[in-house]
Amino acid sequence: MTKQELFEQIKQKRSFLCVGLDTDTAKLPSCVANSEDPVFEFNRAIIDATARYTVCYKPNLAFYEQNGAQGWTSFERTCRYIRENYPEIMIIADAKRGDIGNTSEMYARAFFGPRPGLDRGLADCVTLSPYMGRDTVEPFLKYTGYWSVILALTSNPSADDFEMLKLENGKYLYEQVLETSSKWGTPDNTMYVVGATKADMLGGIRRIVPDHFLLVPGVGAQGGSLSEVAKYGMNSQCGLLVNSSRGIIYADSSERFAETAAQKALEMQEEMERLLTQYL
Amino acid sequence: MTKQELFEQIKQKRSFLCVGLDTDTAKLPSCVANSEDPVFEFNRAIIDATARYTVCYKPNLAFYEQNGAQGWTSFERTCRYIRENYPEIMIIADAKRGDIGNTSEMYARAFFGPRPGLDRGLADCVTLSPYMGRDTVEPFLKYTGYWSVILALTSNPSADDFEMLKLENGKYLYEQVLETSSKWGTPDNTMYVVGATKADMLGGIRRIVPDHFLLVPGVGAQGGSLSEVAKYGMNSQCGLLVNSSRGIIYADSSERFAETAAQKALEMQEEMERLLTQYL
Repeated sequence: MTKQELFEQIKQKRSFLCVGLDTDTAKLPSCVANSEDPVFEFNRAIIDATARYTVCYKPNLAFYEQNGAQGWTSFERTCRYIRENYPEIMIIADAKRGDIGNTSEMYARAFFGPRPGLDRGLADCVTLSPYMGRDTVEPFLKYTGYWSVILALTSNPSADDFEMLKLENGKYLYEQVLETSSKWGTPDNTMYVVGATKADMLGGIRRIVPDHFLLVPGVGAQGGSLSEVAKYGMNSQCGLLVNSSRGIIYADSSERFAETAAQKALEMQEEMERLLTQYL
Repeated sequence: MTKQELFEQIKQKRSFLCVGLDTDTAKLPSCVANSEDPVFEFNRAIIDATARYTVCYKPNLAFYEQNGAQGWTSFERTCRYIRENYPEIMIIADAKRGDIGNTSEMYARAFFGPRPGLDRGLADCVTLSPYMGRDTVEPFLKYTGYWSVILALTSNPSADDFEMLKLENGKYLYEQVLETSSKWGTPDNTMYVVGATKADMLGGIRRIVPDHFLLVPGVGAQGGSLSEVAKYGMNSQCGLLVNSSRGIIYADSSERFAETAAQKALEMQEEMERLLTQYL
Protein backbone atom coordinates (compact mmCIF):
# COMPACT_ATOMS: atom_id res chain seq x y z
CA MET A 1 0.00 0.00 0.00
CA THR A 2 1.37 3.43 -0.91
CA LYS A 3 1.39 6.50 1.30
CA GLN A 4 -1.00 8.19 -1.12
CA GLU A 5 -3.45 5.26 -0.91
CA LEU A 6 -3.33 5.45 2.87
CA PHE A 7 -3.96 9.20 2.80
CA GLU A 8 -6.87 8.77 0.37
CA GLN A 9 -8.47 6.28 2.74
CA ILE A 10 -7.98 8.68 5.67
CA LYS A 11 -9.70 11.46 3.73
CA GLN A 12 -12.52 9.21 2.60
CA LYS A 13 -13.27 7.70 6.03
CA ARG A 14 -12.41 10.94 7.87
CA SER A 15 -10.46 8.76 10.27
CA PHE A 16 -6.89 7.86 11.15
CA LEU A 17 -7.92 5.08 13.51
CA CYS A 18 -5.95 1.88 13.89
CA VAL A 19 -7.77 -0.83 15.82
CA GLY A 20 -5.39 -3.03 17.79
CA LEU A 21 -6.38 -6.69 17.69
CA ASP A 22 -4.79 -7.65 21.03
CA THR A 23 -7.13 -10.58 21.22
CA ASP A 24 -6.70 -12.32 24.56
CA THR A 25 -8.20 -15.81 24.81
CA ALA A 26 -8.88 -15.18 28.50
CA LYS A 27 -11.07 -12.13 27.80
CA LEU A 28 -13.34 -13.44 25.05
CA PRO A 29 -17.12 -13.08 25.49
CA SER A 30 -18.78 -16.40 26.24
CA CYS A 31 -20.77 -16.22 23.00
CA VAL A 32 -17.61 -16.83 20.91
CA ALA A 33 -15.58 -18.82 23.45
CA ASN A 34 -16.95 -22.17 22.33
CA SER A 35 -16.44 -21.80 18.61
CA GLU A 36 -13.78 -23.77 16.74
CA ASP A 37 -11.39 -20.75 16.53
CA PRO A 38 -12.64 -18.26 19.15
CA VAL A 39 -9.88 -15.71 18.52
CA PHE A 40 -10.70 -15.54 14.81
CA GLU A 41 -14.47 -15.45 15.43
CA PHE A 42 -14.00 -12.55 17.85
CA ASN A 43 -11.74 -10.71 15.39
CA ARG A 44 -14.16 -11.25 12.52
CA ALA A 45 -17.03 -9.72 14.49
CA ILE A 46 -14.87 -6.79 15.60
CA ILE A 47 -13.62 -6.20 12.05
CA ASP A 48 -17.09 -6.28 10.48
CA ALA A 49 -18.33 -3.87 13.14
CA THR A 50 -15.47 -1.36 12.95
CA ALA A 51 -14.17 -1.47 9.35
CA ARG A 52 -16.05 1.63 8.22
CA TYR A 53 -14.37 3.74 10.93
CA THR A 54 -10.92 2.22 10.62
CA VAL A 55 -8.03 2.65 8.18
CA CYS A 56 -5.81 0.06 9.80
CA TYR A 57 -5.86 -3.12 11.91
CA LYS A 58 -2.95 -4.04 14.12
CA PRO A 59 -2.88 -7.65 15.33
CA ASN A 60 -0.39 -7.94 18.21
CA LEU A 61 1.54 -11.15 17.62
CA ALA A 62 2.16 -11.85 21.31
CA PHE A 63 -1.55 -12.47 21.89
CA TYR A 64 -1.58 -15.04 19.08
CA GLU A 65 1.71 -16.73 19.98
CA GLN A 66 0.51 -17.44 23.50
CA ASN A 67 -1.65 -20.07 21.72
CA GLY A 68 1.31 -21.44 19.74
CA ALA A 69 0.70 -22.82 16.25
CA GLN A 70 -3.08 -22.49 16.76
CA GLY A 71 -2.53 -18.80 17.53
CA TRP A 72 -0.59 -18.32 14.32
CA THR A 73 -3.48 -19.93 12.46
CA SER A 74 -5.86 -17.40 14.04
CA PHE A 75 -3.47 -14.59 13.06
CA GLU A 76 -3.28 -15.81 9.46
CA ARG A 77 -7.04 -16.26 9.19
CA THR A 78 -7.56 -12.76 10.56
CA CYS A 79 -5.21 -11.20 7.99
CA ARG A 80 -6.82 -13.20 5.17
CA TYR A 81 -10.28 -12.11 6.29
CA ILE A 82 -9.26 -8.45 6.14
CA ARG A 83 -7.53 -8.90 2.76
CA GLU A 84 -10.57 -10.62 1.27
CA ASN A 85 -13.28 -8.35 2.67
CA TYR A 86 -11.62 -4.98 3.27
CA PRO A 87 -8.63 -4.89 0.90
CA GLU A 88 -8.26 -1.12 1.30
CA ILE A 89 -7.49 -1.43 5.03
CA MET A 90 -3.84 -1.53 6.07
CA ILE A 91 -2.59 -4.38 8.28
CA ILE A 92 0.22 -3.79 10.76
CA ALA A 93 1.75 -6.94 12.23
CA ASP A 94 2.74 -5.66 15.66
CA ALA A 95 5.65 -8.00 16.19
CA LYS A 96 8.57 -5.79 17.39
CA ARG A 97 11.01 -8.00 15.51
CA GLY A 98 14.69 -7.15 15.04
CA ASP A 99 17.62 -9.40 14.23
CA ILE A 100 20.71 -9.72 12.02
CA GLY A 101 20.31 -9.57 8.24
CA ASN A 102 19.83 -13.21 7.30
CA THR A 103 17.30 -13.64 10.12
CA SER A 104 15.44 -10.43 9.34
CA GLU A 105 15.05 -11.73 5.79
CA MET A 106 13.07 -14.65 7.22
CA TYR A 107 10.87 -12.38 9.33
CA ALA A 108 10.26 -10.19 6.29
CA ARG A 109 9.22 -13.26 4.33
CA ALA A 110 6.91 -14.35 7.17
CA PHE A 111 4.92 -11.13 7.06
CA PHE A 112 5.42 -9.72 3.54
CA GLY A 113 6.14 -12.83 1.47
CA PRO A 114 3.65 -14.32 -1.01
CA ARG A 115 0.82 -16.46 0.35
CA PRO A 116 -1.35 -18.88 -1.61
CA GLY A 117 -4.62 -17.25 -2.63
CA LEU A 118 -3.56 -13.71 -1.64
CA ASP A 119 -2.32 -11.01 -4.01
CA ARG A 120 0.05 -9.64 -1.32
CA GLY A 121 1.62 -10.66 2.00
CA LEU A 122 -0.28 -11.16 5.25
CA ALA A 123 0.60 -7.67 6.50
CA ASP A 124 1.49 -4.31 4.95
CA CYS A 125 3.65 -3.21 7.87
CA VAL A 126 5.70 -4.78 10.66
CA THR A 127 6.84 -3.07 13.84
CA LEU A 128 10.61 -3.37 14.35
CA SER A 129 13.01 -2.70 17.20
CA PRO A 130 16.03 -0.66 16.11
CA TYR A 131 18.52 -1.78 18.80
CA MET A 132 20.70 -3.86 16.44
CA GLY A 133 20.78 -1.17 13.76
CA ARG A 134 20.33 -0.99 10.02
CA ASP A 135 20.68 -4.77 9.35
CA THR A 136 17.44 -5.25 11.25
CA VAL A 137 15.38 -3.10 8.93
CA GLU A 138 16.97 -3.37 5.48
CA PRO A 139 15.53 -6.76 4.47
CA PHE A 140 12.02 -5.42 5.07
CA LEU A 141 12.66 -2.35 2.89
CA LYS A 142 13.35 -4.57 -0.11
CA TYR A 143 9.61 -5.31 -0.37
CA THR A 144 8.00 -2.58 -2.46
CA GLY A 145 4.64 -1.37 -1.15
CA TYR A 146 5.37 -2.55 2.41
CA TRP A 147 6.38 -0.62 5.49
CA SER A 148 8.82 -0.87 8.39
CA VAL A 149 7.41 0.70 11.55
CA ILE A 150 10.42 1.43 13.75
CA LEU A 151 10.19 1.91 17.51
CA ALA A 152 11.26 5.43 18.42
CA LEU A 153 9.69 6.73 21.63
CA THR A 154 7.27 4.26 23.19
CA SER A 155 4.35 4.75 25.54
CA ASN A 156 5.38 2.42 28.37
CA PRO A 157 6.71 3.67 31.73
CA SER A 158 10.20 2.22 31.23
CA ALA A 159 10.71 3.98 27.88
CA ASP A 160 12.94 6.24 29.98
CA ASP A 161 15.43 3.46 30.71
CA PHE A 162 17.20 3.71 27.36
CA GLU A 163 15.14 5.61 24.77
CA MET A 164 15.48 8.82 26.80
CA LEU A 165 19.21 8.48 27.53
CA LYS A 166 21.20 11.57 26.61
CA LEU A 167 23.99 10.92 24.12
CA GLU A 168 27.39 12.56 24.04
CA ASN A 169 26.21 14.66 21.08
CA GLY A 170 23.41 16.16 23.17
CA LYS A 171 20.59 14.21 21.54
CA TYR A 172 18.34 11.67 23.17
CA LEU A 173 18.75 8.11 21.94
CA TYR A 174 15.26 8.12 20.39
CA GLU A 175 16.15 11.29 18.46
CA GLN A 176 19.29 9.63 17.12
CA VAL A 177 17.24 6.57 16.17
CA LEU A 178 14.88 8.81 14.18
CA GLU A 179 17.73 10.70 12.53
CA THR A 180 19.84 7.68 11.60
CA SER A 181 17.05 5.33 10.57
CA SER A 182 15.19 7.95 8.51
CA LYS A 183 18.13 7.69 6.07
CA TRP A 184 17.68 3.92 5.62
CA GLY A 185 14.31 4.26 3.92
CA THR A 186 11.91 7.04 2.98
CA PRO A 187 8.56 8.36 4.25
CA ASP A 188 7.05 5.99 1.66
CA ASN A 189 8.27 2.80 3.36
CA THR A 190 9.09 3.75 6.95
CA MET A 191 6.94 4.84 9.88
CA TYR A 192 7.73 5.36 13.56
CA VAL A 193 6.12 4.28 16.81
CA VAL A 194 5.66 7.30 19.07
CA GLY A 195 3.59 6.90 22.22
CA ALA A 196 0.64 9.20 22.86
CA THR A 197 1.75 9.53 26.47
CA LYS A 198 4.64 11.66 25.15
CA ALA A 199 2.46 13.96 23.00
CA ASP A 200 4.34 17.09 24.04
CA MET A 201 7.49 15.65 22.46
CA LEU A 202 5.79 15.17 19.09
CA GLY A 203 6.76 18.70 18.05
CA GLY A 204 10.46 17.88 18.34
CA ILE A 205 9.92 14.56 16.59
CA ARG A 206 8.19 16.32 13.69
CA ARG A 207 11.27 18.51 13.21
CA ILE A 208 13.34 15.34 12.61
CA VAL A 209 10.78 13.36 10.57
CA PRO A 210 8.29 15.92 9.16
CA ASP A 211 6.92 13.64 6.45
CA HIS A 212 6.78 10.19 8.05
CA PHE A 213 3.63 8.55 9.29
CA LEU A 214 3.66 7.96 13.05
CA LEU A 215 1.92 5.01 14.64
CA VAL A 216 0.68 6.29 17.97
CA PRO A 217 -0.37 3.83 20.67
CA GLY A 218 -1.28 4.82 24.18
CA VAL A 219 -4.51 6.78 23.64
CA GLY A 220 -7.16 5.43 25.99
CA ALA A 221 -6.09 2.70 28.42
CA GLN A 222 -2.56 4.12 28.70
CA GLY A 223 -3.76 7.71 29.22
CA GLY A 224 -2.72 9.62 26.07
CA SER A 225 -4.85 12.43 24.61
CA LEU A 226 -5.99 12.31 20.98
CA SER A 227 -6.31 16.07 20.63
CA GLU A 228 -2.79 16.62 21.97
CA VAL A 229 -1.44 14.03 19.53
CA ALA A 230 -3.16 15.75 16.60
CA LYS A 231 -2.05 19.20 17.74
CA TYR A 232 1.64 18.31 17.86
CA GLY A 233 1.85 15.42 15.42
CA MET A 234 -0.37 15.99 12.39
CA ASN A 235 1.25 16.92 9.07
CA SER A 236 -0.14 17.87 5.67
CA GLN A 237 -1.00 14.25 4.83
CA CYS A 238 -2.32 13.59 8.34
CA GLY A 239 0.83 11.58 9.13
CA LEU A 240 -0.82 9.84 12.07
CA LEU A 241 -2.28 6.41 12.74
CA VAL A 242 -3.67 6.42 16.26
CA ASN A 243 -4.15 3.01 17.77
CA SER A 244 -6.75 1.91 20.26
CA SER A 245 -6.92 -1.71 21.38
CA ARG A 246 -8.49 -2.40 24.76
CA GLY A 247 -10.68 0.73 24.65
CA ILE A 248 -12.49 -0.64 21.60
CA ILE A 249 -12.30 -4.42 21.54
CA TYR A 250 -12.92 -5.00 25.26
CA ALA A 251 -15.34 -2.16 25.90
CA ASP A 252 -18.12 -4.70 26.44
CA SER A 253 -17.81 -8.36 27.42
CA SER A 254 -21.44 -9.23 26.70
CA GLU A 255 -22.80 -10.72 23.47
CA ARG A 256 -23.17 -7.11 22.28
CA PHE A 257 -19.36 -6.69 22.24
CA ALA A 258 -19.21 -5.97 18.50
CA GLU A 259 -21.92 -3.27 18.57
CA THR A 260 -20.17 -1.61 21.52
CA ALA A 261 -16.83 -1.81 19.71
CA ALA A 262 -18.46 -0.14 16.70
CA GLN A 263 -19.81 2.60 18.98
CA LYS A 264 -16.37 3.21 20.55
CA ALA A 265 -14.71 3.24 17.12
CA LEU A 266 -17.34 5.69 15.87
CA GLU A 267 -16.68 7.99 18.82
CA MET A 268 -12.98 8.03 17.97
CA GLN A 269 -13.71 8.53 14.27
CA GLU A 270 -15.91 11.51 15.09
CA GLU A 271 -13.20 13.12 17.20
CA MET A 272 -10.68 12.38 14.44
CA GLU A 273 -12.96 13.97 11.85
CA ARG A 274 -13.09 17.14 13.98
CA LEU A 275 -9.30 17.17 14.28
CA LEU A 276 -8.79 16.55 10.55
CA THR A 277 -11.09 19.48 9.81
CA GLN A 278 -9.24 21.65 12.31
CA TYR A 279 -5.65 20.91 11.25
CA LEU A 280 -5.73 19.71 7.65
CA MET B 1 16.90 -24.92 34.66
CA THR B 2 19.23 -23.45 37.29
CA LYS B 3 22.67 -21.97 36.69
CA GLN B 4 24.19 -24.80 38.70
CA GLU B 5 22.44 -27.41 36.53
CA LEU B 6 23.75 -25.70 33.42
CA PHE B 7 27.28 -25.62 34.85
CA GLU B 8 27.09 -29.32 35.83
CA GLN B 9 26.14 -30.18 32.27
CA ILE B 10 29.04 -28.11 30.91
CA LYS B 11 31.47 -29.96 33.19
CA GLN B 12 30.02 -33.34 32.30
CA LYS B 13 30.00 -32.84 28.53
CA ARG B 14 33.20 -30.73 28.56
CA SER B 15 31.34 -28.39 26.24
CA PHE B 16 29.66 -25.01 26.22
CA LEU B 17 28.26 -25.45 22.73
CA CYS B 18 24.88 -24.12 21.71
CA VAL B 19 23.65 -25.44 18.36
CA GLY B 20 21.53 -22.89 16.52
CA LEU B 21 18.55 -24.48 14.78
CA ASP B 22 18.22 -21.85 12.03
CA THR B 23 16.43 -24.39 9.91
CA ASP B 24 15.78 -22.94 6.46
CA THR B 25 13.26 -24.80 4.34
CA ALA B 26 15.18 -23.76 1.22
CA LYS B 27 18.39 -25.46 2.42
CA LEU B 28 17.12 -28.86 3.51
CA PRO B 29 18.81 -31.98 2.09
CA SER B 30 16.64 -33.75 -0.45
CA CYS B 31 16.43 -36.84 1.78
CA VAL B 32 14.20 -34.99 4.30
CA ALA B 33 12.56 -32.50 1.94
CA ASN B 34 9.67 -34.80 1.07
CA SER B 35 8.66 -35.82 4.58
CA GLU B 36 5.46 -34.57 6.18
CA ASP B 37 7.29 -32.00 8.38
CA PRO B 38 10.74 -31.56 6.77
CA VAL B 39 11.92 -28.90 9.24
CA PHE B 40 11.18 -31.13 12.22
CA GLU B 41 12.69 -34.22 10.55
CA PHE B 42 15.87 -32.28 9.82
CA ASN B 43 16.02 -30.95 13.39
CA ARG B 44 15.43 -34.39 14.87
CA ALA B 45 18.34 -35.85 12.91
CA ILE B 46 20.60 -32.94 13.86
CA ILE B 47 19.60 -33.18 17.53
CA ASP B 48 20.18 -36.94 17.75
CA ALA B 49 23.57 -36.51 16.08
CA THR B 50 24.81 -33.58 18.19
CA ALA B 51 23.15 -33.93 21.64
CA ARG B 52 26.20 -35.53 23.29
CA TYR B 53 28.37 -32.50 22.37
CA THR B 54 25.77 -29.84 23.09
CA VAL B 55 24.45 -28.19 26.25
CA CYS B 56 21.93 -26.02 24.49
CA TYR B 57 19.77 -25.77 21.36
CA LYS B 58 18.69 -22.43 20.00
CA PRO B 59 15.82 -22.52 17.49
CA ASN B 60 15.65 -19.16 15.70
CA LEU B 61 11.96 -18.26 15.48
CA ALA B 62 12.29 -16.30 12.22
CA PHE B 63 13.14 -19.48 10.32
CA TYR B 64 9.97 -21.14 11.64
CA GLU B 65 7.68 -18.14 11.21
CA GLN B 66 8.52 -17.89 7.51
CA ASN B 67 6.34 -21.02 7.28
CA GLY B 68 3.53 -19.46 9.32
CA ALA B 69 1.41 -21.71 11.55
CA GLN B 70 3.09 -24.80 10.07
CA GLY B 71 6.44 -23.33 11.12
CA TRP B 72 5.23 -22.83 14.68
CA THR B 73 4.16 -26.47 14.68
CA SER B 74 7.69 -27.48 13.62
CA PHE B 75 9.12 -25.25 16.38
CA GLU B 76 6.84 -26.78 19.02
CA ARG B 77 7.59 -30.33 17.86
CA THR B 78 11.32 -29.59 17.99
CA CYS B 79 11.12 -28.29 21.57
CA ARG B 80 9.00 -31.25 22.65
CA TYR B 81 11.43 -33.68 21.05
CA ILE B 82 14.33 -32.16 23.01
CA ARG B 83 12.30 -32.10 26.25
CA GLU B 84 11.31 -35.74 25.88
CA ASN B 85 14.65 -37.15 24.77
CA TYR B 86 17.29 -34.82 26.18
CA PRO B 87 15.66 -33.10 29.17
CA GLU B 88 19.04 -31.93 30.50
CA ILE B 89 19.64 -29.75 27.43
CA MET B 90 18.69 -26.09 27.64
CA ILE B 91 16.43 -24.58 24.97
CA ILE B 92 16.82 -20.94 23.97
CA ALA B 93 13.98 -19.54 21.89
CA ASP B 94 15.85 -16.99 19.79
CA ALA B 95 12.98 -14.61 19.29
CA LYS B 96 14.38 -11.13 20.10
CA ARG B 97 11.02 -10.12 21.53
CA GLY B 98 10.42 -6.89 23.45
CA ASP B 99 7.20 -5.01 24.13
CA ILE B 100 5.20 -3.23 26.85
CA GLY B 101 4.31 -5.12 30.00
CA ASN B 102 0.90 -6.61 29.16
CA THR B 103 2.24 -7.77 25.78
CA SER B 104 5.46 -9.16 27.21
CA GLU B 105 3.31 -11.22 29.58
CA MET B 106 1.82 -12.93 26.52
CA TYR B 107 5.22 -13.58 24.97
CA ALA B 108 6.43 -15.02 28.28
CA ARG B 109 3.42 -17.31 28.35
CA ALA B 110 4.09 -18.39 24.75
CA PHE B 111 7.58 -19.61 25.57
CA PHE B 112 7.56 -20.37 29.32
CA GLY B 113 3.91 -21.17 30.02
CA PRO B 114 2.63 -24.67 30.73
CA ARG B 115 2.07 -27.01 27.80
CA PRO B 116 0.01 -30.21 27.80
CA GLY B 117 2.21 -33.24 28.33
CA LEU B 118 5.34 -31.26 29.28
CA ASP B 119 6.61 -30.63 32.81
CA ARG B 120 7.87 -27.16 31.82
CA GLY B 121 7.48 -24.58 29.06
CA LEU B 122 8.67 -25.00 25.48
CA ALA B 123 11.89 -23.07 26.12
CA ASP B 124 14.13 -22.31 29.12
CA CYS B 125 15.30 -18.97 27.76
CA VAL B 126 14.11 -16.28 25.37
CA THR B 127 16.25 -13.64 23.71
CA LEU B 128 14.91 -10.12 24.34
CA SER B 129 15.61 -6.68 22.92
CA PRO B 130 16.10 -4.06 25.66
CA TYR B 131 15.14 -0.93 23.68
CA MET B 132 11.83 -0.36 25.51
CA GLY B 133 13.37 -0.89 28.95
CA ARG B 134 12.48 -2.80 32.06
CA ASP B 135 8.80 -3.47 31.17
CA THR B 136 10.03 -5.65 28.33
CA VAL B 137 11.90 -8.06 30.58
CA GLU B 138 10.05 -8.12 33.90
CA PRO B 139 7.18 -10.43 32.91
CA PHE B 140 9.72 -13.08 31.86
CA LEU B 141 11.56 -12.85 35.18
CA LYS B 142 8.42 -13.88 37.05
CA TYR B 143 8.89 -17.46 35.78
CA THR B 144 11.23 -19.27 38.20
CA GLY B 145 13.81 -21.50 36.53
CA TYR B 146 13.62 -19.59 33.25
CA TRP B 147 15.99 -17.05 31.71
CA SER B 148 15.87 -13.73 29.91
CA VAL B 149 18.69 -13.38 27.42
CA ILE B 150 19.07 -9.67 26.77
CA LEU B 151 20.74 -8.21 23.69
CA ALA B 152 23.82 -6.24 24.71
CA LEU B 153 26.49 -6.07 22.01
CA THR B 154 25.57 -8.02 18.90
CA SER B 155 27.72 -9.57 16.18
CA ASN B 156 26.18 -7.90 13.11
CA PRO B 157 27.90 -5.09 11.17
CA SER B 158 25.31 -2.47 12.11
CA ALA B 159 25.66 -3.08 15.85
CA ASP B 160 27.60 0.19 15.69
CA ASP B 161 24.53 2.20 14.69
CA PHE B 162 23.12 2.44 18.22
CA GLU B 163 24.70 -0.13 20.58
CA MET B 164 28.07 1.61 20.28
CA LEU B 165 26.78 5.17 20.69
CA LYS B 166 28.59 7.12 23.38
CA LEU B 167 26.32 8.46 26.11
CA GLU B 168 26.64 11.77 27.92
CA ASN B 169 27.98 9.85 30.95
CA GLY B 170 30.91 8.50 28.92
CA LYS B 171 29.57 4.96 28.61
CA TYR B 172 28.56 3.18 25.46
CA LEU B 173 24.86 2.38 25.16
CA TYR B 174 25.52 -1.38 25.40
CA GLU B 175 27.46 -0.82 28.65
CA GLN B 176 24.53 1.12 30.09
CA VAL B 177 22.16 -1.65 28.98
CA LEU B 178 24.32 -4.17 30.87
CA GLU B 179 24.57 -1.98 33.96
CA THR B 180 20.89 -1.04 34.16
CA SER B 181 19.38 -4.37 33.19
CA SER B 182 21.67 -6.41 35.46
CA LYS B 183 19.73 -4.84 38.35
CA TRP B 184 16.36 -6.12 37.04
CA GLY B 185 17.24 -9.75 37.60
CA THR B 186 20.21 -11.79 38.77
CA PRO B 187 22.89 -14.00 37.18
CA ASP B 188 20.46 -16.86 37.94
CA ASN B 189 17.76 -15.64 35.56
CA THR B 190 19.44 -13.25 33.14
CA MET B 191 22.04 -13.76 30.40
CA TYR B 192 23.39 -11.43 27.73
CA VAL B 193 23.98 -11.72 24.00
CA VAL B 194 27.52 -10.63 23.17
CA GLY B 195 28.83 -11.24 19.66
CA ALA B 196 32.05 -13.18 19.15
CA THR B 197 33.12 -10.64 16.55
CA LYS B 198 33.67 -8.23 19.45
CA ALA B 199 35.78 -10.65 21.57
CA ASP B 200 38.26 -7.95 22.58
CA MET B 201 35.44 -6.08 24.31
CA LEU B 202 34.51 -9.07 26.47
CA GLY B 203 37.02 -8.00 29.13
CA GLY B 204 35.17 -4.73 29.69
CA ILE B 205 31.84 -6.53 29.64
CA ARG B 206 33.06 -8.98 32.29
CA ARG B 207 33.86 -6.03 34.59
CA ILE B 208 30.17 -5.01 34.43
CA VAL B 209 28.61 -8.50 34.56
CA PRO B 210 31.25 -10.85 36.03
CA ASP B 211 28.82 -13.61 36.98
CA HIS B 212 26.30 -13.70 34.14
CA PHE B 213 26.26 -16.28 31.40
CA LEU B 214 26.89 -14.79 27.97
CA LEU B 215 25.32 -16.23 24.84
CA VAL B 216 27.92 -15.71 22.13
CA PRO B 217 26.90 -15.98 18.47
CA GLY B 218 29.21 -15.14 15.58
CA VAL B 219 31.83 -17.90 15.86
CA GLY B 220 32.24 -19.54 12.47
CA ALA B 221 30.23 -18.08 9.59
CA GLN B 222 30.43 -14.55 11.05
CA GLY B 223 34.18 -14.76 11.71
CA GLY B 224 34.57 -14.76 15.52
CA SER B 225 37.30 -16.78 17.27
CA LEU B 226 36.43 -19.33 19.96
CA SER B 227 39.79 -19.08 21.73
CA GLU B 228 39.52 -15.27 21.91
CA VAL B 229 36.02 -15.56 23.33
CA ALA B 230 37.20 -17.99 26.03
CA LYS B 231 40.27 -15.90 26.84
CA TYR B 232 38.30 -12.73 27.52
CA GLY B 233 34.89 -14.08 28.45
CA MET B 234 35.18 -17.21 30.59
CA ASN B 235 34.44 -16.96 34.31
CA SER B 236 34.67 -19.45 37.18
CA GLN B 237 31.45 -21.21 36.12
CA CYS B 238 32.39 -21.05 32.44
CA GLY B 239 29.83 -18.29 31.91
CA LEU B 240 29.72 -18.86 28.17
CA LEU B 241 27.36 -20.50 25.72
CA VAL B 242 28.92 -20.28 22.29
CA ASN B 243 26.51 -20.71 19.42
CA SER B 244 27.15 -22.19 16.02
CA SER B 245 24.33 -22.53 13.51
CA ARG B 246 25.28 -22.64 9.85
CA GLY B 247 28.77 -24.08 10.54
CA ILE B 248 27.17 -27.22 12.01
CA ILE B 249 23.72 -27.75 10.57
CA TYR B 250 24.56 -26.85 6.94
CA ALA B 251 28.09 -28.25 6.82
CA ASP B 252 26.90 -30.96 4.43
CA SER B 253 23.84 -30.95 2.17
CA SER B 254 24.03 -34.64 1.28
CA GLU B 255 22.14 -37.44 3.00
CA ARG B 256 25.11 -37.63 5.40
CA PHE B 257 24.21 -34.18 6.81
CA ALA B 258 23.65 -35.46 10.35
CA GLU B 259 26.97 -37.35 10.56
CA THR B 260 28.80 -34.27 9.28
CA ALA B 261 26.96 -32.08 11.79
CA ALA B 262 28.05 -34.48 14.55
CA GLN B 263 31.64 -34.24 13.31
CA LYS B 264 31.54 -30.41 13.30
CA ALA B 265 29.97 -30.34 16.76
CA LEU B 266 32.62 -32.77 18.02
CA GLU B 267 35.38 -30.53 16.66
CA MET B 268 33.93 -27.58 18.56
CA GLN B 269 33.46 -29.67 21.71
CA GLU B 270 37.11 -30.76 21.56
CA GLU B 271 38.32 -27.18 21.27
CA MET B 272 35.97 -26.22 24.11
CA GLU B 273 37.32 -29.04 26.26
CA ARG B 274 40.85 -27.68 25.73
CA LEU B 275 39.73 -24.18 26.66
CA LEU B 276 37.85 -25.37 29.75
CA THR B 277 40.99 -27.22 30.88
CA GLN B 278 43.11 -24.15 30.23
CA TYR B 279 40.95 -21.52 31.95
CA LEU B 280 38.77 -23.30 34.49
